[in-house]
Amino acid sequence: MRATVLPETLADILELTAEVGDRLAARAAAVDAGTEPSEPGYRELREAGLPALLVPRAAGGAGLDFAGYTRVLETLAARDAATALGFNMHNVAIGALCESADTPLPAGAEEFRHWVFTEVTEGRALFASAVSEPGTGAKLRALRTTYRADGDGYVLDGTKSFVSLSGLADYFVVAAAAREGADEVSHFVVAADDPGVRFGELWEGAAMNGTRTGGLVLDGVRLPRSRLFLGVEGMSLYKLVREPHWMVAGYTGVYLGIAQALFDHVVDFVRGSARHRDSPVVRHEVGRLSAELRAARALVYAAGELVVARRGSTEANASVHAAKYTVGELAPRLALAAVRICGASALGRARPVERLLRESSFALVMPAKPDECLEYLGKAALGVNLRDVDSLDW
Amino acid sequence: MRATVLPETLADILELTAEVGDRLAARAAAVDAGTEPSEPGYRELREAGLPALLVPRAAGGAGLDFAGYTRVLETLAARDAATALGFNMHNVAIGALCESADTPLPAGAEEFRHWVFTEVTEGRALFASAVSEPGTGAKLRALRTTYRADGDGYVLDGTKSFVSLSGLADYFVVAAAAREGADEVSHFVVAADDPGVRFGELWEGAAMNGTRTGGLVLDGVRLPRSRLFLGVEGMSLYKLVREPHWMVAGYTGVYLGIAQALFDHVVDFVRGSARHRDSPVVRHEVGRLSAELRAARALVYAAGELVVARRGSTEANASVHAAKYTVGELAPRLALAAVRICGASALGRARPVERLLRESSFALVMPAKPDECLEYLGKAALGVNLRDVDSLDW
Amino acid sequence: MRATVLPETLADILELTAEVGDRLAARAAAVDAGTEPSEPGYRELREAGLPALLVPRAAGGAGLDFAGYTRVLETLAARDAATALGFNMHNVAIGALCESADTPLPAGAEEFRHWVFTEVTEGRALFASAVSEPGTGAKLRALRTTYRADGDGYVLDGTKSFVSLSGLADYFVVAAAAREGADEVSHFVVAADDPGVRFGELWEGAAMNGTRTGGLVLDGVRLPRSRLFLGVEGMSLYKLVREPHWMVAGYTGVYLGIAQALFDHVVDFVRGSARHRDSPVVRHEVGRLSAELRAARALVYAAGELVVARRGSTEANASVHAAKYTVGELAPRLALAAVRICGASALGRARPVERLLRESSFALVMPAKPDECLEYLGKAALGVNLRDVDSLDW
Amino acid sequence: MRATVLPETLADILELTAEVGDRLAARAAAVDAGTEPSEPGYRELREAGLPALLVPRAAGGAGLDFAGYTRVLETLAARDAATALGFNMHNVAIGALCESADTPLPAGAEEFRHWVFTEVTEGRALFASAVSEPGTGAKLRALRTTYRADGDGYVLDGTKSFVSLSGLADYFVVAAAAREGADEVSHFVVAADDPGVRFGELWEGAAMNGTRTGGLVLDGVRLPRSRLFLGVEGMSLYKLVREPHWMVAGYTGVYLGIAQALFDHVVDFVRGSARHRDSPVVRHEVGRLSAELRAARALVYAAGELVVARRGSTEANASVHAAKYTVGELAPRLALAAVRICGASALGRARPVERLLRESSFALVMPAKPDECLEYLGKAALGVNLRDVDSLDW
Repeated sequence: MRATVLPETLADILELTAEVGDRLAARAAAVDAGTEPSEPGYRELREAGLPALLVPRAAGGAGLDFAGYTRVLETLAARDAATALGFNMHNVAIGALCESADTPLPAGAEEFRHWVFTEVTEGRALFASAVSEPGTGAKLRALRTTYRADGDGYVLDGTKSFVSLSGLADYFVVAAAAREGADEVSHFVVAADDPGVRFGELWEGAAMNGTRTGGLVLDGVRLPRSRLFLGVEGMSLYKLVREPHWMVAGYTGVYLGIAQALFDHVVDFVRGSARHRDSPVVRHEVGRLSAELRAARALVYAAGELVVARRGSTEANASVHAAKYTVGELAPRLALAAVRICGASALGRARPVERLLRESSFALVMPAKPDECLEYLGKAALGVNLRDVDSLDW
Repeated sequence: MRATVLPETLADILELTAEVGDRLAARAAAVDAGTEPSEPGYRELREAGLPALLVPRAAGGAGLDFAGYTRVLETLAARDAATALGFNMHNVAIGALCESADTPLPAGAEEFRHWVFTEVTEGRALFASAVSEPGTGAKLRALRTTYRADGDGYVLDGTKSFVSLSGLADYFVVAAAAREGADEVSHFVVAADDPGVRFGELWEGAAMNGTRTGGLVLDGVRLPRSRLFLGVEGMSLYKLVREPHWMVAGYTGVYLGIAQALFDHVVDFVRGSARHRDSPVVRHEVGRLSAELRAARALVYAAGELVVARRGSTEANASVHAAKYTVGELAPRLALAAVRICGASALGRARPVERLLRESSFALVMPAKPDECLEYLGKAALGVNLRDVDSLDW
Repeated sequence: MRATVLPETLADILELTAEVGDRLAARAAAVDAGTEPSEPGYRELREAGLPALLVPRAAGGAGLDFAGYTRVLETLAARDAATALGFNMHNVAIGALCESADTPLPAGAEEFRHWVFTEVTEGRALFASAVSEPGTGAKLRALRTTYRADGDGYVLDGTKSFVSLSGLADYFVVAAAAREGADEVSHFVVAADDPGVRFGELWEGAAMNGTRTGGLVLDGVRLPRSRLFLGVEGMSLYKLVREPHWMVAGYTGVYLGIAQALFDHVVDFVRGSARHRDSPVVRHEVGRLSAELRAARALVYAAGELVVARRGSTEANASVHAAKYTVGELAPRLALAAVRICGASALGRARPVERLLRESSFALVMPAKPDECLEYLGKAALGVNLRDVDSLDW
Repeated sequence: MRATVLPETLADILELTAEVGDRLAARAAAVDAGTEPSEPGYRELREAGLPALLVPRAAGGAGLDFAGYTRVLETLAARDAATALGFNMHNVAIGALCESADTPLPAGAEEFRHWVFTEVTEGRALFASAVSEPGTGAKLRALRTTYRADGDGYVLDGTKSFVSLSGLADYFVVAAAAREGADEVSHFVVAADDPGVRFGELWEGAAMNGTRTGGLVLDGVRLPRSRLFLGVEGMSLYKLVREPHWMVAGYTGVYLGIAQALFDHVVDFVRGSARHRDSPVVRHEVGRLSAELRAARALVYAAGELVVARRGSTEANASVHAAKYTVGELAPRLALAAVRICGASALGRARPVERLLRESSFALVMPAKPDECLEYLGKAALGVNLRDVDSLDW
């Protein structure tokens, strides 16, 4: 199938995203409740060509940078946060590769990059990221999934947890160590239907069912050399330390979108209720939420622009950690404020607020977690060299 | 059926409550998920004799005061908040009557009181409160449910919303106005099986399904004079203004119990994880939650003691509003903190934290709502006469 | 005296400001303590040519816009907040005039504008703003200072309070009403040595003595027509409603600078103390302050850019109110955090923290006050037409 | 001079304290500004007999327990926080001794106790505590002040910092180690006029000048054996670990009194301003402060009662740490809220709010500091044995 050509300008892409998102929004409650599958939402995204947002223009994508991407994600998540979060996993998986588009690479790596871009643009493939493992979370240096050379390729063994897009993505970018717990970590692209790949049960959580998140077992999965990410072993940890923005804050737009949706809901509710609209106390509370949302958005956008201008700098990295932390704390607090203002109706299953409250709480548990963000920021402020791989417990 | 005799001391009642609560806890997740009915939990409460907690010793109950009751409710809610909240509705319905036990009343009122006590102790009846109405909430002065004299009794017409214990309680204490919106408001006891009583669909909310909350329609319900609360018309608003503690803060123990359950869960989690236990940052956060919980509990207990010592005083009333506000703000904040500390596992359906988060958010919407509490406290501090029925929008 | 020519680029102006600010910083504690006069600091500013920051390039100034100005003010205030705050009054007084530079005006107004620019660039004059009055604060619609036509000019009578740069500024831009409390409000330029002008005692406050703030009495002060601001009567309220950014948030940079100074002090302290540097708890707290400061800064900068891009739009105006509110809440909270981290030494008179704490608290009382900001934001979110002069109590 | 006999009931003692406090309040601003000495305030306290508050009834004192003492201190501090804080140092110095009154002691200790009580009741002596040292604060295990046996007595050498009541107290209870940094720490009573005692310059801080806090140098100070606290060496650390309430939270009442004074000021201000009184937003803010103050007070009182009921238990100790933390965070936050509500006038030197803001900030730096409180609470919750001297960095 031939890829849809995405619009040229960010404004037009945002408009397209809003249109697609409005269609997704209509099904979001049912997907959350488990009465509808999440697959059709992702099909909409594929059909609109959105998986190629980050792929360079020259390769048939929209060539969005991190800043633009964050705004698209925000727009989508304000309508359907779960699908937006799932979609983000695709972009986290290929984001750094897309950003490398202007950098010439050795032959093998060029080929790999070309293959990924083509899969996305022509094959409309969805990728997903498989890093976390049971018990140790997303710590690259505690991986128990291993790879070993075998003839002209590799064999992977291990178990991943919290893998999104289970049964939806075509490929999974799997982090594996040369030995258990080794610093030498590489990424490999595993196809959903590669022999030895098995999907576990889906995780049942408080929300975000639409991401179809669950376990992934790799049982002696053989891969050709061409599936080694960028054709070089042992680069994963180095890359993460240098440019953590995808891993740490790719999804920031999701929680900004949730916060915006909550704010919009509060405004609609208050405008529709004379008793609330005329209350100075309610107006002030709305004003306070407005101020908090504006500050979080300004920071998220500024962080996005810093990544574009100075990718890999400690300043840009600190900024994305600050953005993630700030919007991650804001979203659930804003959800509680929405409940406080809108009252009992906000907690009815028919209204989105209670779902947004549950969804917003995921911001507090996804890596980089709040404490990890603050540790990064504290160390950055105190002059610790954060480009040293030993400065943090990645 | 003959009533179980409740233990003599508060300590023993708390122990009994904990035992019953432990049995309820085992079913709480399933009731929340809608896969099990809530009725067996209430049957446990009845069989333990707990509906007679507030009924005077002389009348066969445990004679607990507001302070003791709050502690029992806390103990129960730490195990099963939804059932505790439903159970509270029974006690709100009969609480003021029980407190009047030492006050001699006119003949009709004495008879009414005796009847209620006997229904509870010997009949193990559950009462529930039916005040809120669609659109206006629990405002007594905006009631559209009316009563009118008819021969030797009354006829009631109207629609109530957010009535708990639907299909569970034997009697509903219904607030009705002499005319729509009149200040002359009376309470009547309506039996679940009185002709003209109809239960609407249950409200589907983010949590607290175990309360079986829904609509109640009164369609020309005829009642004998003996069902007029205390045998006197027009006392409801006066009583509420004087002694709002049951209405405003009867359920405070529920949210204190939720907060305690969350704190206990955090402590268990941290003790079970070396990485968390050894983290000074986590220890500090646990310490902060401990301080907040201690302050809220100290205030709730102090408010309970003030109600006992100086029932109806502005100081006691202000104190219960402060207690309700404080614990109501704490519980959901503590739930988010629990998510932050415990991570993704806290949001799994198998763990209680995500349910407690949803349950805790109800504290923000139940009357007295946060804003109403602050308005009461502000007016009390500024010297407004809060025993004047016009000082607040009841 | 001939004006110093200011550097071309913002970066160079910031560098110059930092240099001047460092000299001011050395005297800040003594000025605060009242043991040194504040005048030499303002002389430094004049000698560096900084009063012409906003004056258009074509008229001999640096032509900074609101966004650039905010950054200069931040840079200055991080070194000497009191002088920066006093200096801001000059810029508030002439800011809107400078922004009008590209707008052709009627002859009289052109002349007025030219005169002001020349006074600033060639005369190195300092202007100040005189709006507030005893009892009513800065409410334009409650003014008791009046003007009346008199021959070819005007006569002003009234009493102003909280007038900064007393004894320092050459001119005061005075708001006066055609009648007490009238909506018809005009601004006039009064020279410090005009007959009938009298300065009251300086206000003794918790900090910010360097602004030399006090009363100003206008006792039948006669002014020629050329001193009417822009040559048109009755424009003041209209202008304020349309473009409140100078009045509301001109000084935002001051409190951002204070916040930065506090943060820098904390970082220096922690880096210098092994016990603090090695504490994960302290590092996290530093990280949290970093995140808060980054969010506030991003918002302040974004608001500045919005003013430049869409001056007078409700969105820009809402944004400056949000920025003012956010940084105004942050600065004193950050001051307390600095005390918490740095301990007793932070409260010694020899350290800047205790002075910065006192200075930061002024953000909570200067117009637009926190409540006024939230009211503006709430109304903006709820769709109230804020360009209607009756939407707010200006 | 013969001791004044203190009233019998707590209510009467509180009334007496309020009377004395009102006289002190009249001078508080001048003492703060350094234009009046603090000594007359302490003379008032002596003349009223208040130094004997804690001394047992049988020994001529009022026999107050920790709970009652806290309320007296609150009452005094609401009027003059600096003198109350200085006065607290006397009570911290003798508090544990007074609590031991019912415990029979070995002969030497009995004699020592009798001597202290007599000095206080008949001699109206003021004691003070001298623990902190430059650089290490109040850490008992880092003491550089040493004692050594010498003939029939001891010789002390060292330098103390942050010693209150300099030039005011008659005796100083000095903590000293058998060797630098040793765990074997003892307390000695040093008279202000003992040879070798020298007072350093007073510390100039942001507030609390009335405590006359400064350095104390002990230069080969010889003491008879009778000046060894309780006649036993090496008990200090053991005692502190067991019963930290005096050291950690003796002064809690001071900050509760400051919070009350701020709240009272806000209420007076709002009641006196129609614009504020009629503002729902202001009323809510007052309500919020009321709720926070009530919660903090309930916790402080509950902690006091726990100390009385179960002195030395981990539960009581945790409770005083929670109380100290809570009221210490509240007071400065409430001060900022007072500034926010009362506006510019609150920052004038003529009003108490700006002084109370400065005074309240001391709660954040006095031991137990906020972080130390949270660490204690976190460890208590997590089951660390806090009676083990190695569990905390005392």
